[in-house]
Amino acid sequence: MITSVMMAGLPGNMATIIANAIRLESNMQLLNVALAEADGNSQIVDQSIIYVPLDKHEEILKSLWPDIIVDFTAPGAVNRNAELYCRCGIPFVMGTTGGDRKKLAETVEHSSIPAVIAPNMAKQIVVLLEMMKFAATNFPNSFRDYRLVIRESHQQAKKDQSGTAKKMVSYFNMLGIPFTEDQIISERNPIVQEVSWGVPQEHLAGHGYHTYELLSPDGTVFFQFTHNVNGRNIYLPGIIESIRFLARQEKGVGKIFSMADVLRG
Amino acid sequence: MITSVMMAGLPGNMATIIANAIRLESNMQLLNVALAEADGNSQIVDQSIIYVPLDKHEEILKSLWPDIIVDFTAPGAVNRNAELYCRCGIPFVMGTTGGDRKKLAETVEHSSIPAVIAPNMAKQIVVLLEMMKFAATNFPNSFRDYRLVIRESHQQAKKDQSGTAKKMVSYFNMLGIPFTEDQIISERNPIVQEVSWGVPQEHLAGHGYHTYELLSPDGTVFFQFTHNVNGRNIYLPGIIESIRFLARQEKGVGKIFSMADVLRG
Amino acid sequence: MITSVMMAGLPGNMATIIANAIRLESNMQLLNVALAEADGNSQIVDQSIIYVPLDKHEEILKSLWPDIIVDFTAPGAVNRNAELYCRCGIPFVMGTTGGDRKKLAETVEHSSIPAVIAPNMAKQIVVLLEMMKFAATNFPNSFRDYRLVIRESHQQAKKDQSGTAKKMVSYFNMLGIPFTEDQIISERNPIVQEVSWGVPQEHLAGHGYHTYELLSPDGTVFFQFTHNVNGRNIYLPGIIESIRFLARQEKGVGKIFSMADVLRG
Amino acid sequence: MITSVMMAGLPGNMATIIANAIRLESNMQLLNVALAEADGNSQIVDQSIIYVPLDKHEEILKSLWPDIIVDFTAPGAVNRNAELYCRCGIPFVMGTTGGDRKKLAETVEHSSIPAVIAPNMAKQIVVLLEMMKFAATNFPNSFRDYRLVIRESHQQAKKDQSGTAKKMVSYFNMLGIPFTEDQIISERNPIVQEVSWGVPQEHLAGHGYHTYELLSPDGTVFFQFTHNVNGRNIYLPGIIESIRFLARQEKGVGKIFSMADVLRG
Repeated sequence: MITSVMMAGLPGNMATIIANAIRLESNMQLLNVALAEADGNSQIVDQSIIYVPLDKHEEILKSLWPDIIVDFTAPGAVNRNAELYCRCGIPFVMGTTGGDRKKLAETVEHSSIPAVIAPNMAKQIVVLLEMMKFAATNFPNSFRDYRLVIRESHQQAKKDQSGTAKKMVSYFNMLGIPFTEDQIISERNPIVQEVSWGVPQEHLAGHGYHTYELLSPDGTVFFQFTHNVNGRNIYLPGIIESIRFLARQEKGVGKIFSMADVLRG
Repeated sequence: MITSVMMAGLPGNMATIIANAIRLESNMQLLNVALAEADGNSQIVDQSIIYVPLDKHEEILKSLWPDIIVDFTAPGAVNRNAELYCRCGIPFVMGTTGGDRKKLAETVEHSSIPAVIAPNMAKQIVVLLEMMKFAATNFPNSFRDYRLVIRESHQQAKKDQSGTAKKMVSYFNMLGIPFTEDQIISERNPIVQEVSWGVPQEHLAGHGYHTYELLSPDGTVFFQFTHNVNGRNIYLPGIIESIRFLARQEKGVGKIFSMADVLRG
Repeated sequence: MITSVMMAGLPGNMATIIANAIRLESNMQLLNVALAEADGNSQIVDQSIIYVPLDKHEEILKSLWPDIIVDFTAPGAVNRNAELYCRCGIPFVMGTTGGDRKKLAETVEHSSIPAVIAPNMAKQIVVLLEMMKFAATNFPNSFRDYRLVIRESHQQAKKDQSGTAKKMVSYFNMLGIPFTEDQIISERNPIVQEVSWGVPQEHLAGHGYHTYELLSPDGTVFFQFTHNVNGRNIYLPGIIESIRFLARQEKGVGKIFSMADVLRG
Repeated sequence: MITSVMMAGLPGNMATIIANAIRLESNMQLLNVALAEADGNSQIVDQSIIYVPLDKHEEILKSLWPDIIVDFTAPGAVNRNAELYCRCGIPFVMGTTGGDRKKLAETVEHSSIPAVIAPNMAKQIVVLLEMMKFAATNFPNSFRDYRLVIRESHQQAKKDQSGTAKKMVSYFNMLGIPFTEDQIISERNPIVQEVSWGVPQEHLAGHGYHTYELLSPDGTVFFQFTHNVNGRNIYLPGIIESIRFLARQEKGVGKIFSMADVLRG
């Protein structure tokens, strides 16, 4: 069975990359109509995509009835879009961050559709965070009084701290390590990134490197965890699996799934 | 309430270090009689310990009734000792490796006492292994086709490969990474260890360093995990907690606990 | 003034890269006839190069009189070619390794032409080796009894040890460090190279990574030197400068120059 | 022949360590009278040292006539002391930094004695700096447009940047790399130093770690130099050799020697 997928967010970078990946999947069909802000069109390899402007979204959804919508738009569109998808009864993958997350959750829960809501679709990073959550929950204080150094490097354009690093801090706290988010050491200097962190030149504009180093109070035990991501390839398998996962879910009840749910199958 | 603890394994290095640690605990009492192979005695700080030879073990246990026995003896003594402790009904912490582990488990299960059986009492390493088991069980194949390099360094006297590394291999396999134990790169050259791995000179004779490096098939995602342990300090908190844990368990039913059970409380 | 340059060694990889680089120099002219083993031709960007077979080499040199010959052929051709160039009186850059190096030197010294003979044309590596030679000569034994670890990684096809590493060993010996060439640790496994050494996938087939680590006898002082080279770009500036250097030398006396001489100007 | 050595700078840390080292040398005699600021005495192992206050310095020098004075005092004492030693005609090793260095040089040059003036007596660091000076002088611009990152870590009490790093910057500039001293990245946080730099806890209060990383403009060539020093052991051989060197020099002409001169023998 073929799953028909409509994109929301073209011609954004991330949405374009995803559209390309969907086209490569044999059991998915990328619809040649996409939800956009304004009229227009773009080319995804040899497939021409027509943009439907805001005021025509509901009309087009109700005429084409895609199986799944994949939303990589902008924070300001998150809640409006989710309400639209729920009203039309079309399951969706929401990769867009920001907006009112509590309201987003309520919208889905009060609807009759399943949705994957995942601000981070990088499978392996999600697994690492789940591992940390597991440890923090099951073995609290097992790293009591370890000393911690966190370093992260992201593209210069990223003004805030790494969200993944902040999530990790909360788990390290539960493991018994006093540490505050402002102690995260953030590198944004591209020369230092390329020369000293080894970020390839072509990924200076899009990378996320994280290193956590832990030393026991007496200095005899050292742990290090590193996860370095170049570009956006890491996100694609998670998105494709989210689409497949949603296509398998029954409709009728509003239900939110996380990336971890998708990975658990 | 004071827990009385009898050592088995003095004057072995590990048993001696543990005896010293027990003496520092305010709610534990290190008995000044220990189970040994032959007559003798040793000094644990300012406390003189008398060794009871093999043929007097049962007699002394039945006369002193320690609350807990801590066993760090030798592989050849594991099953005999466990049977003795079970026969006498004295809960024990078995840190000794080797012996017939299946028979050891049966001995405890058919007895009326609880026992902590833990070949690795390093709390943080146990947590790491539990995290890996969690990921391998819940997110199988989530690192499919990642390439893996494992390096480990241990004291030159260690002839076999790291047991922890082998355990990790089994989890990486479940995560979708083809890798066999013989691909583990083992360093046993003390010059390379000190110069290149940074092992402090005083720990060349007793350390365990492990590094796991993973690279995604397309080369864009890199993970590294390192756990480096110098000396034996890491084991002491786990042993002390095992004693406390056992002291809290009810007697009457034979039950085996792992280090993970102890850490979960 | 334009310097005309004839290549010897096309269509070899290195010779091709050099020919491309020469074409980009405004004050050099790459001749469209090249010394080869057999008839043929190749395309250097939009310039067609005709190959002159062995038996026509002398004839073509005496008819075209190039200012400089750049030789990147094969070990077996080194002495024959040098004799030919000297006989014809054409200064040359000999980048080819192997052959009878003593005889090669004599050939030039007994001729009337200057030649640059440089088995390694990587400027910065040559500078590093000169620095080491300077230290070894001027401050012998200044690192007495330091312990040394040398690691190098090269493409799997390279069967012998790194020549640069062996040269470094001789200098370390002079600095007071006992170390033999067989102690060099050579990595030829592409998975370990990519995952653990960080060699980019596209350079697995052509790279030279070297790390030297030194630790003082008492362990309080640590030195590390690393030079990692991907691909062959590093050689081009040295070759271009060698051509320019030779073009400035007077003819009439047979004289050998090293890459260090070229760099000193 | 025994060389008699008088200390100036006791009971300072460095002076004390040096005094201890001199006592271990079979052909040196540590005088049991030392130049100090005020009356007092100290114990160097089993040798009692009497302090001579400022106003008795000249008198004691003229009565004891030590062969060599070793000065590790304070910046404010440098010029006064050098003038005193020159006036009395006693060769000296000046390890104290600061003061008016130009005037210091003139004082010696106008005297009749040889002196070793060396703000850095760490032999291997001096060799490294000499190597860099050699490269910068002989192969200027050979690393043109390489990008550079310099990181250094010193004890928290050190308020200024590493002098060695600043010297290295001047050489890197000569090698063709634009870089200013304010681009040096200095680490003074002891937690980061211990956890992330691997500085042993006992050396947090006294260490000097330096790493220089260089990347070619096209990113294909990477160099790294690291020199990490824990404690002060590294200085002792250089000081002992300076004393031996001075003892071999003829008197009669005022002459300044550097540590590099000493090492060259």
